[in-house]
Amino acid sequence: MDPTVRLSVTRTRGETRETDDDVVVVEEPLEIRVGERPVSVTMRTPGDDFDLAAGFLFTEAIASEAESIRHWGSPNVVRVDVRNPVDLQRLQRHFYSTSSCGVCGKTSIDALRVGASRVTSSARVASSVVHALPDALAPAQKTFEETGAIHAAGLFDLHGNLLRVREDVGRHNAVDKLIGSYVREGRTRLDDTILFLSGRAGFEVVQKAIVAGIPIIAAVGAPSSLAVDLAREFGVALLGFVRDGRFNIYVGAERVE
Amino acid sequence: MDPTVRLSVTRTRGETRETDDDVVVVEEPLEIRVGERPVSVTMRTPGDDFDLAAGFLFTEAIASEAESIRHWGSPNVVRVDVRNPVDLQRLQRHFYSTSSCGVCGKTSIDALRVGASRVTSSARVASSVVHALPDALAPAQKTFEETGAIHAAGLFDLHGNLLRVREDVGRHNAVDKLIGSYVREGRTRLDDTILFLSGRAGFEVVQKAIVAGIPIIAAVGAPSSLAVDLAREFGVALLGFVRDGRFNIYVGAERVE
Repeated sequence: MDPTVRLSVTRTRGETRETDDDVVVVEEPLEIRVGERPVSVTMRTPGDDFDLAAGFLFTEAIASEAESIRHWGSPNVVRVDVRNPVDLQRLQRHFYSTSSCGVCGKTSIDALRVGASRVTSSARVASSVVHALPDALAPAQKTFEETGAIHAAGLFDLHGNLLRVREDVGRHNAVDKLIGSYVREGRTRLDDTILFLSGRAGFEVVQKAIVAGIPIIAAVGAPSSLAVDLAREFGVALLGFVRDGRFNIYVGAERVE
Repeated sequence: MDPTVRLSVTRTRGETRETDDDVVVVEEPLEIRVGERPVSVTMRTPGDDFDLAAGFLFTEAIASEAESIRHWGSPNVVRVDVRNPVDLQRLQRHFYSTSSCGVCGKTSIDALRVGASRVTSSARVASSVVHALPDALAPAQKTFEETGAIHAAGLFDLHGNLLRVREDVGRHNAVDKLIGSYVREGRTRLDDTILFLSGRAGFEVVQKAIVAGIPIIAAVGAPSSLAVDLAREFGVALLGFVRDGRFNIYVGAERVE
């Protein structure tokens, strides 16, 4: 399935109208199964489905190693078989998921914070590198360019080199796809990297970055209060409004030179 | 609880830095219970919690009439008692929810479309009214003004008069708050209205609008493919990129004069 679809649209400008083609981002449900068991239905943009499944299971602390990942009877179902038995209790808590939130499946407010440890990396970044992130990400946002409607998550090294980018209609799916692409290569600790987000930084994306050990998170948009709290608690730098030669450091100014 | 919080921030511009205060939108979990039973944990911006709970239960087709709605032991827990017994099967499917998605809690892809009927209203709107929506909504977006980080959902009449607006860090919570505020007054059919969204229009918000019978949905941002499909299936007009004197009609051009 393509990540975009072309359809007919009526363009209106003032009182004039014309019929034209437009490109719209595809949003389709993806069911993730562990073995036979459905774990999550998330609304996602098709593409990198295996990365998404691996990333979701990893960042939600359900499974970090897959024996096999494959489509299962439908392009909208991915089946993951895992080597080690998964925590069924945890699996039940995570039974449902959605396109823009990583807190799904917690049965109580107390359970919101997924088990993760403090990020101990001593990574630091120059402010000039931060200023350059938007221009470095933009050319890699292929689907955004076409549709104006998709989130991008890019992983950069500390010198500002773009390592990898993933896009999705759901902010937290983009992060799961990105992290999952490394998990599938056996890399579950992304020390000495910067996660750069094309949109806002909420609780869920910060939580996922922490599980992967990412020490610096920067976003074009604003953070939420809980994102700031979580970043502080886990030793992660959180930067917002990274654009037009400016940014705000909400937590972790010592990581920015 | 306030919808925003003031905190210290390091503002960086080029190579210069200064410490300043900044206002950040609050994101906190809200647990919604029906009677004793937890139905959903959603990440939301505090405020209008009862509207959110009523709207969520209504747009997810769990319950349309509440006997009482109250906080329950915590400002982050709302308990709704309902007159009629709710569909437990449905309730189980909806056990979890999140801040930006209304498809939570469906156990299969086939179950994604909540039971709703075609919107039969013959409502039409003048294009001049559509062009005026952004300027009409902007002054009502109080929290956005401060934080740059919150979604607004406004309900307008067909002449472009703003009837009511709600804001939330989660796009679909803003819609639930808006619709829920009417549900609490006994109004579950919002015929002859326009739902105007400050951001994008995805499947979940379109689904919620359809359940409330809203015939015209307009968004500042882009729609997704599934939002377009759903709007077409249910007879709703869907307009995107409503800004700067332009908009695109993706479905339902006959509703725009």
